[in-house]
Parts: sequence; C-alpha cells; structure tokens
Amino acid sequence: MSVSRPVVHPLEAPPPPPDGAAVAPPHRVRMKDVQGMPGTSGGLVLRVCQLILSAVSLSVMASTSDFPSVTAFRYLVAAVSLQSFWSLTLAVVDVYALLVGRSLRSPRVASLFTIGDGITSTLTFAAASASAGITVFIVNDLDRCDVNHCGRFTSATFMAFMCWFAVSPSFLLNFWSLASR
Amino acid sequence: MSVSRPVVHPLEAPPPPPDGAAVAPPHRVRMKDVQGMPGTSGGLVLRVCQLILSAVSLSVMASTSDFPSVTAFRYLVAAVSLQSFWSLTLAVVDVYALLVGRSLRSPRVASLFTIGDGITSTLTFAAASASAGITVFIVNDLDRCDVNHCGRFTSATFMAFMCWFAVSPSFLLNFWSLASR
Repeated sequence: MSVSRPVVHPLEAPPPPPDGAAVAPPHRVRMKDVQGMPGTSGGLVLRVCQLILSAVSLSVMASTSDFPSVTAFRYLVAAVSLQSFWSLTLAVVDVYALLVGRSLRSPRVASLFTIGDGITSTLTFAAASASAGITVFIVNDLDRCDVNHCGRFTSATFMAFMCWFAVSPSFLLNFWSLASR
Repeated sequence: MSVSRPVVHPLEAPPPPPDGAAVAPPHRVRMKDVQGMPGTSGGLVLRVCQLILSAVSLSVMASTSDFPSVTAFRYLVAAVSLQSFWSLTLAVVDVYALLVGRSLRSPRVASLFTIGDGITSTLTFAAASASAGITVFIVNDLDRCDVNHCGRFTSATFMAFMCWFAVSPSFLLNFWSLASR
C-alpha cells in the first residue's frame, strides 16, 4: 500500500484508459491494473484455463498407444507438458499474490512473465499446428482412421489450440503492460 | 510600384525534413520513432526480407509436383501467398512514406498494421509448423524420401519459418508503439 495518497489534480488529468483503473496511479513506474495481468483474479482464471486445457491435451495424447511413432505427436506431448508446468507455476504465483495482496506489476516481473509466455505459447502453437498437419494428413489425405486413433489425435490437437488461445491474452497483456509503463 | 508583389515570408515555408521525420512536430499522440516501425528504412528492410522469404518459400513449394496431395502443403502455399501480398503492400506504403517524408505513426494506422501483421504472422507460423510436421513425418518417421521431394519440402518450410522470424519484429514493434503512445 502506498503511503502517499493520490491527489486530485485537474490539470494533470490524463486521458482515461479504456478498461480497468480510472484512477491515475501515484507512482511513476506503477503500471495499470488490467484484469488478466499477473496478480489479478482474471489472470488466475486465465492460468487455470491454460493448465486444464494443456493437461487434457497431454493426457488425451499420451493415452494413445502409438503417439511415439510420430515426431509431431511426441513434440506436442513435450510442449503441452512444458505449458502445464509453466501455467501451474504462474497460477501458484497468482494465488500467492492474491492472498497476500501483493502487486506483481513491476517491470522486471512483467518482462520475465512476457518472455516465458511468449516462449511457451509459441512452442504450444507450433506443436498444435504440427499435430494438426499430421492429423489432417491421416484423416483426409491418407484416410487411415481404421488403424489410427483419429478421434484422440483430433481432440488433443484441438485442446492444444484452445490452450494457445488461453495463453495469448496473458502474453499480449503482459507485453502491453510492459510497453505502456 | 507594384502592390501585388509576392512577399517573402520565411516563417510560412519551412524546408522539408531531410531524412524521414527527424524534426517531429511536438504533438500529444506522436509516438516514438523506432527503426523497424512503418515509415522507417528499417521497416522497409523488414518488409523486403519478408517479401523475399515468403516468395522463395512459395515458389519452392509450388515447384514440387505433388504438393496438392497434402493439405498442410496446400495451406503453406496459401499462407505464404497471403504473406507475400501483405508484405508487398506494406513495402509499397513504406516506400511512399519514405519518399514523401510522411509519417505513418498515427494510432489508427499502427493498430491496422498490428492486426494485419498478427494475422499474417500467425497464419505463416501455423503453416510452417504444419509443413514441418509433415516433412519430419516423411523424412524421419516414414523414411520415404525416395518418392518425395524431401529437399524442397524442407527448404520451403525453412523459408516459411525465416519469413515468420522477419514478420515478428514488425508485429512486436507495432504492438509496442501502439501500447506506449
């Protein structure tokens, strides 16, 4: 909690942000508090969504017996494992920040989270795209669903794409907050 | 004595700025001028790199006779075609802005370019990943390079990834300039 209370100053009124806090922060490097950023409940919801989706994708893909025969499917398992680990870590950090009431909006923390989100989301998206390429190849081009687990391959790929859709807001919000400080 | 003599008025005719917009007039929504952003020579270099890489990827993949038999390769051709078109358009805009000395740093233009870069780079990256999945599947898992153009598939995929690496700075710089205005 800041000791110096924000003083109402009509001359310094900046243009109000579209969403989130309308009150100007009292500190120079304090960033705007947007739902979805680390340390907010929206951010925690995003992390939990990422964790569930990547865990489902991982377990569905790992439950097929023949996924190690295709490189792209092995890569998908590795990528969503990393994504699960990263999202779980950040979810724990978010829960800690929410319980203690501590702010996670320092530029150093934001840049660390931005880099981590950028790397994991890129890996997850690449793995999902590669698996989608193989799945569409098996289903449409080869038409060999009789000997392959097409349903599970499709489900795991879809879940990985959904997971990427859940990681992207975290990355973009972190990057935005890093740029607009 | 002629009354209608043209009067020399030094204040009303400022010489055009020599390179780009080095003498930016003080304006409230003026953004910082970073090399790589639209309207700068660095941005033009990025656009030309994107155009060359996507055009090479397109022509290498289209030169194989059997690319239409795989969905991921057809998708790669479509994605790098769109990327070439987008990069060519933006390169022309950059050349115009550099020649005329016009600034492209309005928030509306930046958001338009950010959205376009985001869409095309995502499509290019997804196509490159899907093609990489199929290429690795053919080369490593099936080991059927005797009947496939493995070299050309690999080259086209590699060029598409390089193209994505050239698009990403444009997207990130545009997004950054949009956030930090």
